[in-house]
Amino acid sequence: MIMSGRDKIEEPEHLAACLLHFKEMNLDGLVVVGGDDSNTNAAVLAEYLSAQGSKTRIIGVPKTIDGDMKNGQIEASFGFDTAAKTYSELIGNICRDAQSAVKYWHFIRLMGRAASHVALECALQTQPNICLVSEEIQAKGTTLDEIVDGIVDVIVRRAEDGKNYGILLVPEGLPEFISDIKTLIEELSAILGREEKYIMSLGNHAERFQYVSGLLTPASSRVYSSLPVDIQEVLLQRDKHGNVPLSQVETERLLIDLVSDKIRLLKAHGKAKKVKFSPLGHFFGYEGRCAYPSNFDADYCYSLGYAAAVLIRAALTGYTVNVQHLIESSDEWTAGGTPVTMMLNMEMRKGRLTPVIKKALVDLEGAPFRYFAAHRDEWAISDAYLFPGPIQYYGPTAVCDAPTKTLALEKGAGKCCRGK
Amino acid sequence: MIMSGRDKIEEPEHLAACLLHFKEMNLDGLVVVGGDDSNTNAAVLAEYLSAQGSKTRIIGVPKTIDGDMKNGQIEASFGFDTAAKTYSELIGNICRDAQSAVKYWHFIRLMGRAASHVALECALQTQPNICLVSEEIQAKGTTLDEIVDGIVDVIVRRAEDGKNYGILLVPEGLPEFISDIKTLIEELSAILGREEKYIMSLGNHAERFQYVSGLLTPASSRVYSSLPVDIQEVLLQRDKHGNVPLSQVETERLLIDLVSDKIRLLKAHGKAKKVKFSPLGHFFGYEGRCAYPSNFDADYCYSLGYAAAVLIRAALTGYTVNVQHLIESSDEWTAGGTPVTMMLNMEMRKGRLTPVIKKALVDLEGAPFRYFAAHRDEWAISDAYLFPGPIQYYGPTAVCDAPTKTLALEKGAGKCCRGK
Repeated sequence: MIMSGRDKIEEPEHLAACLLHFKEMNLDGLVVVGGDDSNTNAAVLAEYLSAQGSKTRIIGVPKTIDGDMKNGQIEASFGFDTAAKTYSELIGNICRDAQSAVKYWHFIRLMGRAASHVALECALQTQPNICLVSEEIQAKGTTLDEIVDGIVDVIVRRAEDGKNYGILLVPEGLPEFISDIKTLIEELSAILGREEKYIMSLGNHAERFQYVSGLLTPASSRVYSSLPVDIQEVLLQRDKHGNVPLSQVETERLLIDLVSDKIRLLKAHGKAKKVKFSPLGHFFGYEGRCAYPSNFDADYCYSLGYAAAVLIRAALTGYTVNVQHLIESSDEWTAGGTPVTMMLNMEMRKGRLTPVIKKALVDLEGAPFRYFAAHRDEWAISDAYLFPGPIQYYGPTAVCDAPTKTLALEKGAGKCCRGK
Repeated sequence: MIMSGRDKIEEPEHLAACLLHFKEMNLDGLVVVGGDDSNTNAAVLAEYLSAQGSKTRIIGVPKTIDGDMKNGQIEASFGFDTAAKTYSELIGNICRDAQSAVKYWHFIRLMGRAASHVALECALQTQPNICLVSEEIQAKGTTLDEIVDGIVDVIVRRAEDGKNYGILLVPEGLPEFISDIKTLIEELSAILGREEKYIMSLGNHAERFQYVSGLLTPASSRVYSSLPVDIQEVLLQRDKHGNVPLSQVETERLLIDLVSDKIRLLKAHGKAKKVKFSPLGHFFGYEGRCAYPSNFDADYCYSLGYAAAVLIRAALTGYTVNVQHLIESSDEWTAGGTPVTMMLNMEMRKGRLTPVIKKALVDLEGAPFRYFAAHRDEWAISDAYLFPGPIQYYGPTAVCDAPTKTLALEKGAGKCCRGK
C-alpha cells in the first residue's frame, strides 16, 4: 500500500485524525518516505502517537533526488543516484555533441532545489567546462555581474584556443545564493508588501518597472534593470506563501542573455574577436525523477524497506532508517535506525520556532567540492569531458553498481574519480 | 581517418579539387557517411571521378537520426535507433512522473527535421496521450486552430476523467506542415521580398505588426495575430538562404500558449470546469545525437563499414551500402550496394533542377502510422504509457537488441508492439 502526497501533518486536528484512522486500521506501523520535512513530520507524529498510547510505530526513510538529506548518520537519500546518473548520461551526450558540432555553448540547468549536490555530482561525472556551485557563490558573496564575467572569461579563453563551444552546468537554486539578487529580492518583497496593489494596477511592465526602480536602492535598481524583461516580471510575482516563484526563473536563459550582452560589449570595444557565441539552453529535471532505479538505488531501497519493517517489529518509533557503508558491496552494508530527534534543529518557519531536519548544502570543505575545485581550471579549457552513458543493469559491477562520485569521495574512495 | 563537415561538393571547382587531392593521396576509396544530400553528393562525385579516369571509388552509407533516408533498398539510416531510444527513455520517465505527480501536462518537442519519424517511433515506444504527425496534418489540411482544438478536447476529456496531466509529442518540423501557417509564411515572404528594408526600419514590434498585418489576407492576418509576440518576430526573420528560421520556433511553447488561451476562453463561458492546466515544455534533440550507439546501431554500423570496404575492393563506385533483413538477428543480415542513381529524383533546388535522393516522410498508409492511428484514441484517455528505460548493452536479447518499432512494423513483425 503505497500512496503519495504533499500534505503536512502539523496541526492538532491532523494528528488526531491520524490517531483515529490508525486505530480503525489496527495499524502496527507506518513508513514515511521523504526528505527533511517528511522525516520531521514522522518524528512529530511518532511522539504524539506514543503520548496517546497508540501502538502504531512511525519510521522514516530518506528519499529525495536533491541529495540534501544526509548527515553523520544518513549517508545518502535514495533517488539521488538515479537522477544524477540520468542527467549525467544526457550531459555526457551533449558534451560529445558539442565536441563534434564545435559550434554551440550548452547552458544546462539542473533540478535539485536549493542545494547544488545534483549539479556537483553531474560535474564530477562529466567534467564540464563550467559548473556553478551556489554554496560557493554565497560564501564568496559573488555578484551576478561577477558570475557573468567569470563565464565570459572561460568563453573567451576557449575561443582563443579555437573552441567556440562548451558546457556549463547551473543548479536551479542559484538565484537565491547570489548576493545582489538576494538583496534585490528582499527590497522588492518589502516594496510589494507595502504597495503590491498599486504596482499591479499599473497598465504595463514599463510603468511597473519605472515605478519599482525608483524605490529600489541604486545598486539594486542597476541589477534589476540589467535583467531580461520576463525575469523582471517574475520577480514582481509572489506565490501563495509570499515567496518569489524562483523556480520560474529560467536561470540558463538569464545567463545566456547576460553573457551575450557582455560579449557584444567586448566586441564593440574590439575585444573577444575570436568569440562566436551560439548558446543553447536546457533544463533537466522531470526526466530524472521517475527513471527506473539504478542498481544502487534498488539495492538501497530494498535495504531501507527491510530495515524499516525490522524497526517496526522491534517496536521502535520516531526513527529514520540508516544504511551505512554504502560505498562497499551491498553485502557489507549495515542497517539501523537514527532517532529523528537527534537530527533536529530549531528554525523559524512561518514565524514560529519549529523543529526541522537541517537541509544539507554542499560542504565547501568536503571532498566532492574540493576535488571539483582542484580540477575545474583544467576542465574549463581542455576538453576533459567524460561520457557516462545510460544506466546499466546487467553488466560488470564497475559499470552497473558504482555509487555516486559524491558518496565515493565523501567516504574516502576518491580514487573512483578518473582523470581525463 | 574520420572527419566531419557540412560542406557540399557541388561546383566544378569542388570536384576538381577532390580529383587533385585524391590523386595526391593515392586514394583507393572514400566512404561518405550521411543522409540524402551526402549520398547524392557521393553519386555526383563518383560519376565525375569515373569520367576523369580516377581510381578513387565513392561509397555512401545512410546516416541520420531523422530516419528520413530509407526506401525499397535502404531499410534504415543509422543513428535513428539510438536517438529514438534515448528520447523514449526520457519520455517514458516523464510519463511516469506525470502519472505520479498528477498535475502537469508535458508538451515535448522532438528533433527530426521535416519528417515525423522520430516522434512517431517515440509514440510507438511510449504510448503518450497525444502525438502530432506532421504528414497527416498536411494531408488533411488541418489548421493551427483545429490542432489546438484537438489538443484541448483531449485535455478536457482527461480532466473529466480526473486526469489533469498528460503527455504530448510534437515533431520539430510541424509548423511548415500546417496549412494556414504555410500560407502565412508564403505571404510574409512575399511581403518581405518587396518591403523588408522598410519593415525592419520600423521602430518596434507593434509598428511592424500593424504594418505587416495590413498587407496580409484577412485569414493570414487572423492567424498571425493569434501567435505569441516572440513567434511573430521570428516569422519576420529570414536566414541567409531566405528561409524563415523555423527551428527557432519553439512549437511546444506556441502550443502551450494557444491551448492556455483556449482553455481560458472555455472557462469564461462556464465550460471545461474540471480542467486545471499546468503545462511544462521540453525539447529533446542534442542529447540523442551523440549517445553511445545502441547494440543495433553498433552492429549495423559495423556491417555498413565492412560492406563499404568490400564494395570499394570490388571497384564499385557511386553506390550506397544497403544492409537488409534488419529485424532478424544480425547473423541473418545481408549486405549489398544500391546505385545511388536508382534513388534519385529531380527536384528544384536554388532555382535549378537537381538530382536528389527524396527524403522519406512518414507514409500514412504504412504500418507504423496505421498502428499508431488504430491505438491513439485509447492512448489519449487511458494511461497506456510504456516505460522503455535506458538503452541496455549487456542483458537479454529482447531488452538489448530489438530494432525500432517502426522497422519491426514496416517489415511485418508487428507483434513486437505490446499493448497496455
